Amino acid sequence: MSYGKTFPLLKEKHKKNWDRYTRHDFVLKLANNSLEPIVFLNYLIQDYLFLIQFSKAWSLAILKSDHLNEMKVAANTVNGLMNFEMDLHINLCKSYGISETDLETSNEANENIAYTRYVLETGYSGDFLDLLAALLPCVLGYGEIGINNIDAKPNAIMYQKWIDTYSSKEYQEMCTVVSKLMDDAISVRLGDSFINSYKWIKINKIFNTATLLEVDFWNIFMKKNIN
Amino acid sequence: MSYGKTFPLLKEKHKKNWDRYTRHDFVLKLANNSLEPIVFLNYLIQDYLFLIQFSKAWSLAILKSDHLNEMKVAANTVNGLMNFEMDLHINLCKSYGISETDLETSNEANENIAYTRYVLETGYSGDFLDLLAALLPCVLGYGEIGINNIDAKPNAIMYQKWIDTYSSKEYQEMCTVVSKLMDDAISVRLGDSFINSYKWIKINKIFNTATLLEVDFWNIFMKKNIN
Amino acid sequence: MSYGKTFPLLKEKHKKNWDRYTRHDFVLKLANNSLEPIVFLNYLIQDYLFLIQFSKAWSLAILKSDHLNEMKVAANTVNGLMNFEMDLHINLCKSYGISETDLETSNEANENIAYTRYVLETGYSGDFLDLLAALLPCVLGYGEIGINNIDAKPNAIMYQKWIDTYSSKEYQEMCTVVSKLMDDAISVRLGDSFINSYKWIKINKIFNTATLLEVDFWNIFMKKNIN
Amino acid sequence: MSYGKTFPLLKEKHKKNWDRYTRHDFVLKLANNSLEPIVFLNYLIQDYLFLIQFSKAWSLAILKSDHLNEMKVAANTVNGLMNFEMDLHINLCKSYGISETDLETSNEANENIAYTRYVLETGYSGDFLDLLAALLPCVLGYGEIGINNIDAKPNAIMYQKWIDTYSSKEYQEMCTVVSKLMDDAISVRLGDSFINSYKWIKINKIFNTATLLEVDFWNIFMKKNIN
Repeated sequence: MSYGKTFPLLKEKHKKNWDRYTRHDFVLKLANNSLEPIVFLNYLIQDYLFLIQFSKAWSLAILKSDHLNEMKVAANTVNGLMNFEMDLHINLCKSYGISETDLETSNEANENIAYTRYVLETGYSGDFLDLLAALLPCVLGYGEIGINNIDAKPNAIMYQKWIDTYSSKEYQEMCTVVSKLMDDAISVRLGDSFINSYKWIKINKIFNTATLLEVDFWNIFMKKNIN
Repeated sequence: MSYGKTFPLLKEKHKKNWDRYTRHDFVLKLANNSLEPIVFLNYLIQDYLFLIQFSKAWSLAILKSDHLNEMKVAANTVNGLMNFEMDLHINLCKSYGISETDLETSNEANENIAYTRYVLETGYSGDFLDLLAALLPCVLGYGEIGINNIDAKPNAIMYQKWIDTYSSKEYQEMCTVVSKLMDDAISVRLGDSFINSYKWIKINKIFNTATLLEVDFWNIFMKKNIN
Repeated sequence: MSYGKTFPLLKEKHKKNWDRYTRHDFVLKLANNSLEPIVFLNYLIQDYLFLIQFSKAWSLAILKSDHLNEMKVAANTVNGLMNFEMDLHINLCKSYGISETDLETSNEANENIAYTRYVLETGYSGDFLDLLAALLPCVLGYGEIGINNIDAKPNAIMYQKWIDTYSSKEYQEMCTVVSKLMDDAISVRLGDSFINSYKWIKINKIFNTATLLEVDFWNIFMKKNIN
Repeated sequence: MSYGKTFPLLKEKHKKNWDRYTRHDFVLKLANNSLEPIVFLNYLIQDYLFLIQFSKAWSLAILKSDHLNEMKVAANTVNGLMNFEMDLHINLCKSYGISETDLETSNEANENIAYTRYVLETGYSGDFLDLLAALLPCVLGYGEIGINNIDAKPNAIMYQKWIDTYSSKEYQEMCTVVSKLMDDAISVRLGDSFINSYKWIKINKIFNTATLLEVDFWNIFMKKNIN
């Protein structure tokens, strides 16, 4: 697992919150097969609604790019999300009795809204680096969770499939590409001594906030009564 | 209390959630003087951070305006928020031992981020009506809470002052102006039969979501342990 | 050539300006082979710079979409522009001695900036329909120009190729898809009597302005001395 | 005339284009009283339409601010533009027989659209510094033109008034405030060695483009036949 130079610095600095997110009860229960299926299905619905906003956030990254190669990585990510990952969710949900109409008519949980709108608004009001800082926790966090649980082997096929997806070569390669996008974007804009820049402080704040909002996203599914 | 034609329709349609917001425990406790002062001070800090984003949202309304009179109402609201209401908060906080530096270095609670970024993102991705629909619950909800509790007379001066502020003639006039802004904006864009329009469904959804996010905002201060 | 229901109405209403754009001297000269090659090469450079902003504008359409199918059409268009049409330009330019570095270091003409930033700003400040109204003149105008000149047969291969591209089945199909996107977007948002709506007036104004900015874009290349 | 530290650097680097803008024929003719009144009235109309978009651009600066003091300067500028400068234009136009309805129903010239939408789009897609770099040429250019022509004494009262406005203490103070806003924004974000930063190159490009679009704005009124 090699997620570039910038991300390890961010992760290290916000280790406690990062672990609250990537080692969240939801993940642990999924990995040890103790997660209730109804909870996971509810997660799938919320994650589908999440992906719609996430695709919009990556579209915004195209608009915020300064360079053609940045635009291309962002555009390919949009493509991957909309023509691959979202269909995956639709099919997965269908196989568990959740129709596409169910997905589209479900309401986003407040904590889901919180993270996606924070990412989007950070992008709208900020620049390319601000937006990437808000996107990183999701992309790379899932990648890390995939690797962390690669040997988990939960009995439930749907949990195993979920782990397989995010530990897959394809997903890990996407993580490498996005890590490099961030590294290069920082390098070209802030140079080698980026750690002393004003922007680096802002990037850290955004990364940490986005991580905390990811924790709250998992919290949705740990509440006693989910209606 | 006369908040125009549109708002009563929206409120009626989402009555249950509207009451959860405007008759929230936080408000009831404040009105009957049973709110712990530390909780209220924490609220003041979050509300200050809220006002910064809220001023930005009203600035966005200037950008989203189609007409000069719309721009002017939005610009006056920005002015009122930044040169009056925010200073009010700063002074109020100072009198309770919270310095301006304390305010600026405090972190927004996730639920605070959720509402403000939802409003801002709705504005960025949508149009003038979408943005207003997201702003209404805050402006008019506080106005209604002020009137609802006008006879409450809590002992604590800071609670009385809070009720006085939002039941004041000045604040109520602002509510009338904003209600009229919404009514006129709908009238000019959607005509008399707006209730049958696609946009009206979207406005309802936004209004309801924003109301639910307001409920979660109050919830911040009802948690057992606030760190 | 079937460009849906909305576009013919817009075109008819702004016929004079539409003809100034689609029957501009630049186009006539290209078709009758009297355009100076240096002028065409200059156009290719500006059009390449245009496509970068145009891809951003279609990315913005993803963000402004209310429905998944709208998002998908917009995302596919971004994909087509960035992974197909831009490479076409790069290769075409290369074959005429203009390197990719030449392209990237060229400056956008003011009239080029005018159109692209108008489209983008209309999208940022407005909604999905506003943005589409600003995008239509370019997409469908080029389609119409292709068809109008399908029998022109200019001697110069690069002029013939240009006509072939925009009269091709692929490009015409893209025009059909975009026309349908507009028709459906209007239908779902404004209903059958859209012609009486406030929005229709705004759409007309945007369409007409964008058309006039297209005329000015061609004008770049008709100036006596191009530096 | 003291316009801070950043602006003189930008001006010096783009001296030729800066002079084309601030010493444009329109300005020279106004100052030596040889400008045709009809041309000036046409300018007043376009400048009024310009101010609407310019107010929106300064509103965007509120959204793009990282700090409260930045928000306040931007908000005060919006206030000044909307509640003072625009009324000034309305009254001035009225005294020359151009009604408010005339102003509102006039069409923006393409070159007017070009500059305002470039500024707005630069702000939407970029950050606070990008937006300020696009705003500076207008604010400080007019200030410099005012000072340059302080001794001109054209006979026509309306030309004298125009020079008086932009050479006035009030306008010059606004220029000082905006210059300081830029200086401070650069200082806090880029530090002392900002000249070696990636951002400085981008700021220069934006400043130069905005200056060239200002030249084209004046050009509107130098065309032989204005319809």
